[in-house]
Amino acid sequence: MDYGRIFNFNAGPAALPQPVLERIRDEFLNFKGSGMSILEVSHRSKWFDEVIEQAKASIKRLLTVPDNFSILFLQGGASMQFCMVPMNLLPADQSADYVNTGTWSTKAIKEAKILGRQVKVIASSEDRNFCYIPKDIPVSKDAAYVHITSNNTIKGTQWAKFPDTGAVPIISDMSSDILSRPVPVERFGLIYAGAQKNLGPAGVTLVIIRNDMLERVPASLPSMLKYTTFSESNSMYNTPPCFAIYTVAKVCQWLEEDIGGLAKMEEINRKKADLLYGFFDSSSFYKGTADTDSRSLMNVTFRLPSEDLEKEFVAQATKAGLGGLKGHRSVGGCRASIYNPTGIEGVQALVDFMKEFEKKA
Amino acid sequence: MDYGRIFNFNAGPAALPQPVLERIRDEFLNFKGSGMSILEVSHRSKWFDEVIEQAKASIKRLLTVPDNFSILFLQGGASMQFCMVPMNLLPADQSADYVNTGTWSTKAIKEAKILGRQVKVIASSEDRNFCYIPKDIPVSKDAAYVHITSNNTIKGTQWAKFPDTGAVPIISDMSSDILSRPVPVERFGLIYAGAQKNLGPAGVTLVIIRNDMLERVPASLPSMLKYTTFSESNSMYNTPPCFAIYTVAKVCQWLEEDIGGLAKMEEINRKKADLLYGFFDSSSFYKGTADTDSRSLMNVTFRLPSEDLEKEFVAQATKAGLGGLKGHRSVGGCRASIYNPTGIEGVQALVDFMKEFEKKA
Repeated sequence: MDYGRIFNFNAGPAALPQPVLERIRDEFLNFKGSGMSILEVSHRSKWFDEVIEQAKASIKRLLTVPDNFSILFLQGGASMQFCMVPMNLLPADQSADYVNTGTWSTKAIKEAKILGRQVKVIASSEDRNFCYIPKDIPVSKDAAYVHITSNNTIKGTQWAKFPDTGAVPIISDMSSDILSRPVPVERFGLIYAGAQKNLGPAGVTLVIIRNDMLERVPASLPSMLKYTTFSESNSMYNTPPCFAIYTVAKVCQWLEEDIGGLAKMEEINRKKADLLYGFFDSSSFYKGTADTDSRSLMNVTFRLPSEDLEKEFVAQATKAGLGGLKGHRSVGGCRASIYNPTGIEGVQALVDFMKEFEKKA
Repeated sequence: MDYGRIFNFNAGPAALPQPVLERIRDEFLNFKGSGMSILEVSHRSKWFDEVIEQAKASIKRLLTVPDNFSILFLQGGASMQFCMVPMNLLPADQSADYVNTGTWSTKAIKEAKILGRQVKVIASSEDRNFCYIPKDIPVSKDAAYVHITSNNTIKGTQWAKFPDTGAVPIISDMSSDILSRPVPVERFGLIYAGAQKNLGPAGVTLVIIRNDMLERVPASLPSMLKYTTFSESNSMYNTPPCFAIYTVAKVCQWLEEDIGGLAKMEEINRKKADLLYGFFDSSSFYKGTADTDSRSLMNVTFRLPSEDLEKEFVAQATKAGLGGLKGHRSVGGCRASIYNPTGIEGVQALVDFMKEFEKKA
């Protein structure tokens, strides 16, 4: 690999496209003839203005975001959205539906409850350690929204199709699969995503919100906790996380120009996932943990015959230049995160290594 | 200048030390033999662990932070602290004192009031458009804290000495002068600073909090809005803004190793400010806007004889490679921000340009 780089299967912060990193490095001391680093230009300058406008335009094109949605950049990750969503969009006299599909959904529910809001968990896969996505979601007709987690980074499951919720807006945490496939944005009230998986570096959160949802925002919230503060200021009420937004713009440009858009990206992501899951299905040594119809295209979770073998597997893989294969500390096992920037050659290298490891074990 | 770089007098995001930028660039594709960019390493890895520990240790040494304080990294800038401070540290049945010295103090007061908290403005310099720092602050003996803004980026004033508040803890927004001079941290209950002036890039907020203040944090707050969430997780409850923290670590290392600590940094900063203010005092063309005893060492605000001349001055300076000299959009005029990374040669170049401009005007 160039520069002595490894195949990086980290769950997030995760691999970024090498051409993006090279482009950032090459203009790092003098951004577009400004005589300043991108870290040094004012967020009120023409230089940064072009960056944020490019990022928004590119996301709008990639996801075919309808005109009645706003694209915002916030801070605090998905965890901050867990409280901002109910603070802004769930009035005290209404109830919201949540679907619990793992660690992050559970946290989203917990934060809404801390605020004293009425929360109804309408479906959950907790009965089988979150290894599947529930079907037949009984949406409450009068719910303020239905909250789902489109991809479960830790449990390795993903919604293949989004539920039919009628007139109730869907709100989705898409932190770990945003921009990995086309999404029918028009069916959502709000989409949010921490950047550090498919989108860019840690430190910025993408929020795509349907404009009529903004009418729910209570006037009494602190400025930095109101979506309207960001929608009314083009995400620049105060200094935004400029470098993270700049990197997101570069990643989006890569998706459009180097990859060719989200349909093409999904095709590549499916090939990568099929290669890995197909190998599991032919193996009695490696076992995927998610139900077949709920498998994530992004986070492939699997077990080996024993915990000792798993430890050894991760250690030997790391030595072989395959990094980040340890499962989340809360669940153990192994996990290969294969976000957009991971190429098919990385997945092939992993499968080859797995075969060799099994032979020697 | 190397790389075609300019002298950058932006108020924030602002200039960074060129050696820091070069060091970041040089290891951008492979951080310390990890085979990953610093953007790509997990925040739970040994690589990032070293980064955050180095940043904390360096800040502790530079500011002589006592052992009974915690050093935290948050997101959302000073604006988020405007609400987090009263949410966490001002009980509903107590009152807090605020000193109003400009735009940012005014916003801090506004956000505390939005929360319905009792706020007493014990001193203000609004009567003369915030061109001075009030003396003889009448601190309320039972105040939960006294809030000040140590340096006023927009108005160009700075507290030369911190007020005597007895047993009442001082809370200070130090966004625009953090690490520019030694500070008696032991006299504060909490110090906060958005990074994008003296500390690093936009996207991370430094919080230094006296540990007993953490006992005030109400259990009922959302997790991401509680200081205890950050103090109990080494600022890694969720993914922190890794790259911004990494850059802060690099800037601190530069302050320690290249500059030689904060006493030395203050000496340099005083020389830079004296050069500019001394020039104003000898000129009838350029006029500083702050009272002499309240002048900021960081943001030097000044006027020319007319607004037309100011426009022309900023335009010609930009052409001459002296950027960011326009005053804040809310006050007009001119401003030279001369944070730590701006060298004396930059200030000298500015003074030389000012002399030439006056001659031709």
